[in-house]
Amino acid sequence: MSTTKIAVGIDIGGTNTVWGLVNDQGQVLQKGKRRTRTFPTAELFVQETSTIIKDLFAQNPDYELTGIGIGAPNGNFFKGTIEFAPNLSWKGVVPLKALYQQQFEVPVWLTNDANAAAIGEQQFGVAQDQQDFIIVTLGTGVGSGFVVNGELVYGHDGFAGELGHVTVEHGGRMCGCGRKGCLETYASATGIVRTAVELLATYKGDTMLRIQETLSAQTIAYCAEQGDQLALEIFDFTAQKLGRSLANTVAITSPSLIVLFGGLAKSGALLLDPTQRYMEENLLNIFKNKVVLALSTVPENDAAILGAAALVWKKHQ
Amino acid sequence: MSTTKIAVGIDIGGTNTVWGLVNDQGQVLQKGKRRTRTFPTAELFVQETSTIIKDLFAQNPDYELTGIGIGAPNGNFFKGTIEFAPNLSWKGVVPLKALYQQQFEVPVWLTNDANAAAIGEQQFGVAQDQQDFIIVTLGTGVGSGFVVNGELVYGHDGFAGELGHVTVEHGGRMCGCGRKGCLETYASATGIVRTAVELLATYKGDTMLRIQETLSAQTIAYCAEQGDQLALEIFDFTAQKLGRSLANTVAITSPSLIVLFGGLAKSGALLLDPTQRYMEENLLNIFKNKVVLALSTVPENDAAILGAAALVWKKHQ
Repeated sequence: MSTTKIAVGIDIGGTNTVWGLVNDQGQVLQKGKRRTRTFPTAELFVQETSTIIKDLFAQNPDYELTGIGIGAPNGNFFKGTIEFAPNLSWKGVVPLKALYQQQFEVPVWLTNDANAAAIGEQQFGVAQDQQDFIIVTLGTGVGSGFVVNGELVYGHDGFAGELGHVTVEHGGRMCGCGRKGCLETYASATGIVRTAVELLATYKGDTMLRIQETLSAQTIAYCAEQGDQLALEIFDFTAQKLGRSLANTVAITSPSLIVLFGGLAKSGALLLDPTQRYMEENLLNIFKNKVVLALSTVPENDAAILGAAALVWKKHQ
Repeated sequence: MSTTKIAVGIDIGGTNTVWGLVNDQGQVLQKGKRRTRTFPTAELFVQETSTIIKDLFAQNPDYELTGIGIGAPNGNFFKGTIEFAPNLSWKGVVPLKALYQQQFEVPVWLTNDANAAAIGEQQFGVAQDQQDFIIVTLGTGVGSGFVVNGELVYGHDGFAGELGHVTVEHGGRMCGCGRKGCLETYASATGIVRTAVELLATYKGDTMLRIQETLSAQTIAYCAEQGDQLALEIFDFTAQKLGRSLANTVAITSPSLIVLFGGLAKSGALLLDPTQRYMEENLLNIFKNKVVLALSTVPENDAAILGAAALVWKKHQ
């Protein structure tokens, strides 16, 4: 009987945890989901998910488990821990890798969601064959994963890649991290809503934004697509903050590619085009017209699972 | 007869070129110097320096040439070229590595001065055993070399590490690169003089700075050491720009160490202490009290030669 090598990808989110059995072509063969908060402790969580995963392999005797990859908020690659994740109910330092390692004999890797997304993009997405690129995740917050010389940048402590907490405006908007003016307060799905609220407060003209039931990245994008002037200004402001910040980042690691991913990136060209323009305007000459800015091409539904599974395949190439 | 393995380190500067024969302990056994501008072409330059170096080896038959390392402004590691260096009279793209390779049978490596300094610091200085660190050279301009996972970050095109051209003040001071508000316009030996000129123009109090024959990083440091209030303010302003910029940089690569090097770094604690304070103030929580900020410990006279030679030893470990 021929066997199929399988990586298990587990993505732990504040609301849901999803997992999948992924082959080395990036196909998700089986998947599952649980609400993360129903597990008061990480031990119970690991026990239940391990049982389910073992059952899946028992039902498919031609599947051969190669390794387990985990993406998690505040995940530390070196230590295999989740550390002080504000959106999880498991407090302090959680040794998640060690807990799974007690259940399975195969290697287990853990990193934060943005790093997992970067590896997913390198294995299965738009960053294939790229040795120097950045992924920027524009969701509730802003995360990032840096690949240099083909390898993820973890830094000395495993916490590198916090582009969302680069200060872009001294004395600027209050950030959840306790500091002010972080990129995340401007260029995230929540940041663009803050911009909308600020600009709406003083805007004198007509705008569809005043008659939306909810103000969200999606409704702002919808209004901008209809040509609403204020909505377009909001995107322009967001793109300026992001584009300038990317230009500064290019000066440091000189990537060939920057991939945008996540909720706010779904607004597509509305965000991509002005961000590219502001980035180019602010680049040092030697970097101009060299950096491709692109949207993620990993299928959105499975991106988190694929990213986590890619940690395994990256190590087995 | 026992032989001594030797790396030749060549540092090309706008004014002088220096070279040395260096053993793997970082001792400079022989050295020489020429004015760079006396050579109208790179070909003549390579010819003469090669002849001199070959003579040195002929005179010392127990020396065994291992490789040649070159540090040069606008040096590109991947291509082995010097590209459009504003301070050299050799114009356009100069294939310096290829020219030396015609003269010697050993490997030749070329990179920019700041990258060479980083490797010098890793081999012989304060960054020994460090896998993730940054060197920032504070001279006429500001350069930088990033080491991640133990390796230099070159980026996809060989031009990574341009921290001096990160924008720290939008619409700020005009920079030699044609853009505005680059870190280099504030935190270099020339930048601190610009700050002094700006602040002196409106300063009402007494200050020793008004009676200096020359206004330079050294004289400002001298006045600050005497407790001159304005000179101290100038250092504080400079440190603020540098410290904030370093805090943003830490969020990206999370180094264990940042080394300051070059003319302005000679002001020692005057710059180091407030820079450390501003950096810490602006760091994201997870990075606080983790990053060591230190002055270079490579002997200043030979730093450029040692950095270039270290390119060779790094490859022969």
